[in-house]
Amino acid sequence: MTMTLLSPEHSVVVSRERRARVVVLASGSGSNFAALADAAADGSAPFAVRGLIYNVAGAGVAARASARGIPARLIAHQGFRSREEFDDAVVAALREMEAEWVAMAGWMRIATTRLLEAFAGRILNLHPSLLPSFRGLRAVEQALAAGVKISGCTVHAVVPAVDEGPIVGQAAVPVLEGDDAASLGARIHAAEHLLYPMALARAIAAAG
Amino acid sequence: MTMTLLSPEHSVVVSRERRARVVVLASGSGSNFAALADAAADGSAPFAVRGLIYNVAGAGVAARASARGIPARLIAHQGFRSREEFDDAVVAALREMEAEWVAMAGWMRIATTRLLEAFAGRILNLHPSLLPSFRGLRAVEQALAAGVKISGCTVHAVVPAVDEGPIVGQAAVPVLEGDDAASLGARIHAAEHLLYPMALARAIAAAG
Repeated sequence: MTMTLLSPEHSVVVSRERRARVVVLASGSGSNFAALADAAADGSAPFAVRGLIYNVAGAGVAARASARGIPARLIAHQGFRSREEFDDAVVAALREMEAEWVAMAGWMRIATTRLLEAFAGRILNLHPSLLPSFRGLRAVEQALAAGVKISGCTVHAVVPAVDEGPIVGQAAVPVLEGDDAASLGARIHAAEHLLYPMALARAIAAAG
Repeated sequence: MTMTLLSPEHSVVVSRERRARVVVLASGSGSNFAALADAAADGSAPFAVRGLIYNVAGAGVAARASARGIPARLIAHQGFRSREEFDDAVVAALREMEAEWVAMAGWMRIATTRLLEAFAGRILNLHPSLLPSFRGLRAVEQALAAGVKISGCTVHAVVPAVDEGPIVGQAAVPVLEGDDAASLGARIHAAEHLLYPMALARAIAAAG
């Protein structure tokens, strides 16, 4: 028995000369940013991480970008009068970075149509449950409260409804006796780090 | 990558002299009845399958019981004026068979409080999804329609609400490209046959 069940992948043919340009949106420690960047850096992925946009000054993800020589841009949401204006600034930065795909990785902002329409079908998000179970905030706590024995994580395309949109990939992990949100969350995070690069590669391949 | 992720089990100490007496309720072909009976027959399980109650004349499960020498009782629901009277007959048969635990395995009847109170906390059911996703009928079709990449099955204690009650065990399987209800259903059934004996053993151990 493995501890993680990944949804199956099809092999992806990678052209080194033409890898999709991905920019990551993150708000936190950046472990999934690092997973994506490191998958891209080994040359086997069909994408390159061209930049990071983060919205929380001092977030750990900034140091991870710096350590990898990946350009990072802080766009603090407090400086904007509306979600729309904030997303306009995000879109402008994504365009400056020549993003083709946008990977949300712990991005704690609700996307508006300004962002969704600018990169329609090319924005992915990661959610720490096996959707459609446990949408919304505190998904790990929701799973523990429901008493499930298996949980996991989901990469899905982003649409206006929160935590909806076509599912690209999922990974399942067991819930163990005595788990709390920290221990189950850590197990789910580890699965996310495996899943997200594979799911992004699949989405890119499917888009042609 | 294995094709099935089972929720983890704790080893169960089995006394050969005192194994819990289980009666199975089934309506269909009986593959899960067979999985439970065969798990019990090899002596490693903490339960013995003492009988089968089925409600559909000619159901395949009857032949499986006969082939294993397990007493089977047909209680056709059409002969009763209410769900309660039907369940009274089921409870009477369960008591004649000296059931301590009741395992629903494709039992296509909604249990009333007559049954639930007679075996409170000792009735398990199997559902072909990773609950809380996809409750109710046609769970496999629901999963396909939702586009999930991982589905599975759940063993849970039965309470008055349909497909609710504490989860005892779950197993996850991938959804593959090109799956239809038949192919995904077969993969989930195979996982059920692994899961149900383990989950029943866990429930018995937890009950002391």
